[in-house]
Amino acid sequence: MTVAQVDAQGRLRHFLTLEGFPRTVLVRLLDLAQHFDERRGDPALRHTLAGRTVCTLFFEPSTRTRSSFQIAAQSLGADVLNFDASTSSTSKGETARDTLKTLEAMGVHGFIVRHKDDGAVAALAAEARPGTALINAGDGRIAHPTQGVLDMLTLRQAKGADFSRLKVAIVGDVKHSRVARTDLHALRTLGAGEIRVCGPASLLPTDATLEGCTVTDDFDAALEGVDAVMMLRLQRERMEEGLVGSLADYHRDYGLSAARLKRAAPGAVVLHPGPMNRGVEIDDDVADGPQSLILRQVANGVAARMAVLEVLLGA
Amino acid sequence: MTVAQVDAQGRLRHFLTLEGFPRTVLVRLLDLAQHFDERRGDPALRHTLAGRTVCTLFFEPSTRTRSSFQIAAQSLGADVLNFDASTSSTSKGETARDTLKTLEAMGVHGFIVRHKDDGAVAALAAEARPGTALINAGDGRIAHPTQGVLDMLTLRQAKGADFSRLKVAIVGDVKHSRVARTDLHALRTLGAGEIRVCGPASLLPTDATLEGCTVTDDFDAALEGVDAVMMLRLQRERMEEGLVGSLADYHRDYGLSAARLKRAAPGAVVLHPGPMNRGVEIDDDVADGPQSLILRQVANGVAARMAVLEVLLGA
Amino acid sequence: MTVAQVDAQGRLRHFLTLEGFPRTVLVRLLDLAQHFDERRGDPALRHTLAGRTVCTLFFEPSTRTRSSFQIAAQSLGADVLNFDASTSSTSKGETARDTLKTLEAMGVHGFIVRHKDDGAVAALAAEARPGTALINAGDGRIAHPTQGVLDMLTLRQAKGADFSRLKVAIVGDVKHSRVARTDLHALRTLGAGEIRVCGPASLLPTDATLEGCTVTDDFDAALEGVDAVMMLRLQRERMEEGLVGSLADYHRDYGLSAARLKRAAPGAVVLHPGPMNRGVEIDDDVADGPQSLILRQVANGVAARMAVLEVLLGA
Repeated sequence: MTVAQVDAQGRLRHFLTLEGFPRTVLVRLLDLAQHFDERRGDPALRHTLAGRTVCTLFFEPSTRTRSSFQIAAQSLGADVLNFDASTSSTSKGETARDTLKTLEAMGVHGFIVRHKDDGAVAALAAEARPGTALINAGDGRIAHPTQGVLDMLTLRQAKGADFSRLKVAIVGDVKHSRVARTDLHALRTLGAGEIRVCGPASLLPTDATLEGCTVTDDFDAALEGVDAVMMLRLQRERMEEGLVGSLADYHRDYGLSAARLKRAAPGAVVLHPGPMNRGVEIDDDVADGPQSLILRQVANGVAARMAVLEVLLGA
Repeated sequence: MTVAQVDAQGRLRHFLTLEGFPRTVLVRLLDLAQHFDERRGDPALRHTLAGRTVCTLFFEPSTRTRSSFQIAAQSLGADVLNFDASTSSTSKGETARDTLKTLEAMGVHGFIVRHKDDGAVAALAAEARPGTALINAGDGRIAHPTQGVLDMLTLRQAKGADFSRLKVAIVGDVKHSRVARTDLHALRTLGAGEIRVCGPASLLPTDATLEGCTVTDDFDAALEGVDAVMMLRLQRERMEEGLVGSLADYHRDYGLSAARLKRAAPGAVVLHPGPMNRGVEIDDDVADGPQSLILRQVANGVAARMAVLEVLLGA
Repeated sequence: MTVAQVDAQGRLRHFLTLEGFPRTVLVRLLDLAQHFDERRGDPALRHTLAGRTVCTLFFEPSTRTRSSFQIAAQSLGADVLNFDASTSSTSKGETARDTLKTLEAMGVHGFIVRHKDDGAVAALAAEARPGTALINAGDGRIAHPTQGVLDMLTLRQAKGADFSRLKVAIVGDVKHSRVARTDLHALRTLGAGEIRVCGPASLLPTDATLEGCTVTDDFDAALEGVDAVMMLRLQRERMEEGLVGSLADYHRDYGLSAARLKRAAPGAVVLHPGPMNRGVEIDDDVADGPQSLILRQVANGVAARMAVLEVLLGA
């Protein structure tokens, strides 16, 4: 990281990654997100960020994540500017830094940035002037910190605050997934009891990412007795790249069916960051079943983003 | 329809189609739209939907209809989220249902949906949770109910509330037109005196759609003595599909000129849903002439949408 | 011009061009922009345009200019509708006039219009009904009047209100630049002491545009003793059109480096309308150096647009 996201007083200046993130600050974010989750739609919240301008600055498109941030910012009373950097000045050869500095000069106080490159948002944060806050809405393969907050909030609501009692399985294309790495950072920070990582060898990282995890390519073994299963989306590109075989093969080996889910602990919960490939990594009866927290994750996403926005931009 | 748009108490839950729509509910919508038309810009209206979030969820693009709904929602104080489903998660293989459920979980209360398939919006409405309302902003060839409300409001303002005295001609590509079918439903519900339908045989439906209408391919005959002419847009695709000849031919046979319009009753009015193909289905001196209500339709479109939004989402 | 932008009482009805613009009205706009620049973020400003709807109607894309107008309008409390006319009804064959009249009927009070053709915005203004105001956000090669206001505001803040003492150089592709022509109009109106225009002969206009200017293709000579250097963006198309050689050649002859800037008067300031081609028309150490006012221009852009919106649409 080229810029400190937490200052000497423990105050958050930017929100860039959950790697090495202080436990106390994360727990404070979770508490605040829980608070917002319980107060959704309260008109008094409109004063929180009134007069503040927030810009979604997306160098790669994601309507879904952008919408979640937009609803979070609007419900706190902020003005929202959507800047699609993939079809703008950037494509005229302007640098990402100049786009940021330009919008900052226009009066934007907070940036929600998505970028395809690892560390791109941290690099931009280093260029921001004091008082401007950047939120990483996903960059490269490593960081998507608000996803980490919403996933931990979802687990905490379902299973309680003591993560040391929790066995969690993360399943699928871990190698290319910023969601997986972010959740790994968060689960370690909160002291999860056991983290199992499962996927075909071609989709598992070989570097230090999985240190301390139980790693296996056997999905049935990975599920045995876990309290939570975090499924990952399979990008279709992986087929074209030859990293996995057919969709049918993948589904047979790594698709979560109701039958398979029975191996998990009673009351185990299922998460998925969306959008889902139904019939590939997850079956309908699991996605829509009683153990699924997938829509809860979406609702928590707005609450988590409200918390981050409030901490960074509130008075 | 897979879901009831009106509940047992006659309250509107969704607004999906004017086919079989209760007359009393339609008249109430017209009265409310008239009320909003007279109060446009009144700042007190801002409280109507304050704190409510409305999402335009368009699976096929229509900037014009989207803008009308956006202005209507904003003028009632709602937050508006524009979700272009043709360039979003949907294109990553997510189902329309999952997109809807995701946005609903984010806190969207009302959806304004456009889709290319017949019945797509009603099918989505069946998936919505209680308290979520869907408005059909046009799907397939059958339903575009807010267009029906605005057209009836426009006729009522010009010709009075007694539709039984009215002779109306609907002209052009009725076969592919959701506007035409919606207006037919509304005119029947309000008891229009005579409905004439006119167009080349290749552009007229052969099913039960035109039951009870006077059908002809002779435009001059269709115009004779009518009180209102509802012109339809000719999609250029019809030429490519070989359903009509050249634009010049079409204009000669089915273009509304000032000379032709003289066949209608004195004081007859002209409607068109827009966007117009000037010089094809309508001439400049008619479109911009004293009998044209085309811009009145546009203004009424906002008032009609305000009425629907208020009924579905107001306190 | 087909429509008067200033009425008999000196009131602005539209803002179309700075060509022949009255000096008193321009100075009033500058004073008001200065006022807004000092009050940015004041919540009391929200009442200025509350209940007014402003539409950005862009027939050619420009996310940057659109964003500046959107922030200006929002900070005055207006509702903003973004209408991308390059992907809308217009592409279905609707005329620009019909698009305008349709949005006007929906309740839009002010239009911010960008178009590729000279005079397109003035032609549209002639079609607007009384009470509707149009702002030219750039059309053709001639007019971009809010850019002129922001550039003059920037010069005035740096160098004082007496433009007769000012030597200004405008450098680059003047031939194709609406920014250059607009600044020429404004500088003449404010009585700039000397205007030097510099660029390769292939990029300088040969008509009356440069009347009264000192014209040269020698950049070093043009810089000698000037108080302000206004650099223009080099569009990559100029290479493809054979109007300039390589980027390296252009940079050698017309790129502003720190060394070159020493020829200007002490305390000379550097302007650029953005987006910049760093390393082509301007070097990093100039763009980011102490004499650069480039981000000040961006901030002034919002203040200038607030001033224009307030004058045209305020109570």
